[in-house]
Amino acid sequence: MSPTVGRTMPRPLFAVILAGGVGTRLWPRSRRRCPKQLLDIVNRRTMLQNTVDRVLPLIPAERIFVVTGAEYAAQAHEQLPNLPEGNILVEPSGRGTAPCIGLAAMALAKIEPEGIMISLHADHVIANPDRFRELLQIAAQTASSGRLVTLGIEPTYPETGYGYIERGRYIHRVSGVPVYKVAGFIEKPPAAQAAEYVLGGRHFWNSGLFVWRVDIILQAIQQWLPELYEQIMLIGQAWGTPEQDQVLAKVWDGIHNVSIDVGIMEKAADIAVVPADIGWSDVGSWASLADIMEANGEGNVVLGDTEHLSIETRGSLVYAPGRVVATIAVEDLVVVDTDDVLLICPKSRAQDVRKVIDKLQALGRHDLL
Amino acid sequence: MSPTVGRTMPRPLFAVILAGGVGTRLWPRSRRRCPKQLLDIVNRRTMLQNTVDRVLPLIPAERIFVVTGAEYAAQAHEQLPNLPEGNILVEPSGRGTAPCIGLAAMALAKIEPEGIMISLHADHVIANPDRFRELLQIAAQTASSGRLVTLGIEPTYPETGYGYIERGRYIHRVSGVPVYKVAGFIEKPPAAQAAEYVLGGRHFWNSGLFVWRVDIILQAIQQWLPELYEQIMLIGQAWGTPEQDQVLAKVWDGIHNVSIDVGIMEKAADIAVVPADIGWSDVGSWASLADIMEANGEGNVVLGDTEHLSIETRGSLVYAPGRVVATIAVEDLVVVDTDDVLLICPKSRAQDVRKVIDKLQALGRHDLL
Repeated sequence: MSPTVGRTMPRPLFAVILAGGVGTRLWPRSRRRCPKQLLDIVNRRTMLQNTVDRVLPLIPAERIFVVTGAEYAAQAHEQLPNLPEGNILVEPSGRGTAPCIGLAAMALAKIEPEGIMISLHADHVIANPDRFRELLQIAAQTASSGRLVTLGIEPTYPETGYGYIERGRYIHRVSGVPVYKVAGFIEKPPAAQAAEYVLGGRHFWNSGLFVWRVDIILQAIQQWLPELYEQIMLIGQAWGTPEQDQVLAKVWDGIHNVSIDVGIMEKAADIAVVPADIGWSDVGSWASLADIMEANGEGNVVLGDTEHLSIETRGSLVYAPGRVVATIAVEDLVVVDTDDVLLICPKSRAQDVRKVIDKLQALGRHDLL
Repeated sequence: MSPTVGRTMPRPLFAVILAGGVGTRLWPRSRRRCPKQLLDIVNRRTMLQNTVDRVLPLIPAERIFVVTGAEYAAQAHEQLPNLPEGNILVEPSGRGTAPCIGLAAMALAKIEPEGIMISLHADHVIANPDRFRELLQIAAQTASSGRLVTLGIEPTYPETGYGYIERGRYIHRVSGVPVYKVAGFIEKPPAAQAAEYVLGGRHFWNSGLFVWRVDIILQAIQQWLPELYEQIMLIGQAWGTPEQDQVLAKVWDGIHNVSIDVGIMEKAADIAVVPADIGWSDVGSWASLADIMEANGEGNVVLGDTEHLSIETRGSLVYAPGRVVATIAVEDLVVVDTDDVLLICPKSRAQDVRKVIDKLQALGRHDLL
């Protein structure tokens, strides 16, 4: 098959779920040995399971792939018994998102070189999965013609912890949704700039959700990250042979750490953005989790089987599985209670969990990391 | 022996420790089955043990008595192995402080009718025990001549949760300490009035610490609570006989609930007050405990073997035995973590723990009370 614009048969969709993050931002629940994608914080399924569940109505299990670290592979297998064993790709060590995506694209190219690859993160929350799937299909249609496509999240407040995408000229409308060219990717902005972006209506949050043809992303890697491309091709030559794991380990060791954003997206010219109103969050902190989850009548988000006795408590997040938490006259507080550690902080300071992590590191308390 | 002013041999001192309170104010650590006097919150000894330790340099174990409820007697025995078994008096049910004190005075009258009885509470904290013992001796000297004596705590802030004592005319000076007549006992005042008391310098907190001769307090009971006096005498007739417990139970059942303050102190004429600067607290709430305990360099009081990881935390009390508590950017917060319940509230709202108790009662959650 050669690239064909306007062919009638829809190209098969593949999901690639990046599940390698170490995610200490939901500490103390997330730990090095069990990062947030493997945890059931949001509901009774883990975030990885939720991510698979979210695309299953669109993509069969056989075409859902997971890329994760060696230390998490066993847990990923356990949590996803319906996925073929070979669909869980193991990166020997963390090298950023570009090598991950390259590895997956290489593996998919062996199956369906012009298939559509949807690149997802295993630790994001999407409140409106129906809309999400609709937009994935719109993005897939746009990607069919050879464009790199991203879902741009319509910002609801001036978050400074996200990167932004500026939209450029209008490309076309699919099922009523306008698709734009990307004018530029912007790193995490200062507060004033973020506020302008939200008001201006031309900027989106960079979700890290990408849709592209397998051959097109491989071409982009070849163009913008030629060394990585060669390394991926070397691995590809051994793929499916008895030498696969040995070659993967050896080549991977020499791969440089680079994100798909910095390595490709900020350089490539023909990128499209699909505006997405899907209730997305990267759950980068307990506060962002509180934002995305449904609050009760008092404005509190109570997660897990926590029994919350509230006296004049407002806008707080309480997560203490199996325990009783009584709060009196507190507001906008994060309370996270785990077997060994209790965390308390205002929502506005939830990002500073990393200061606790730093402190623990300095103290050599690896048991708590 | 008849009452003798100016006799040279000092009268023997007896301590009577009232340990019957159910104390839910340090909930969730204090529970019905284990009130605060039986808990080791302040240090490795329980508050009851601390109370005994505090008077032991002055009074031998044989002359230290404890009055407690039937449900706590076994724990009291266990915690105080050096006290003779007969020194733990069991009140069949809670009837307020006057019947307790009457019962103890009757028992002491069998041993030393003109001995000095020091009436203490098992659940108070005294930061300066040396000064406390000095003042007890001064109070004992004043009590020798037949006066009812109380230690009046010099107020350090306008607490509205305490009763106050107004001092009257100067009586005498003992070891440099002026002793005054009591002009009146005042119930818990409104904030403005409490503030006036603190500024005026003529008012003390009512500590509930009393010193009197055994015969004199019995005379006072006879005068102001004649029915109670007769009931106590009935019990006294059976005291030390095989019928003791049976008579105690039967008579006690008909005793009316009355506090020593309302029943005697607010009526009696000749009461003396010894100003006491002893770092006293009745530990009526987690906030008052925080006030009395030594804070660390950040102004936080960390109790029990709690490991506190503090990031910009000030003026807070953290009690979570055996656990790690990380707090970020919180101020003046109370955090109490027990096996089954976690409590979080601002210090200023620590009194509202009773609202949680009320809620639990309404919910029928007796397991948490």
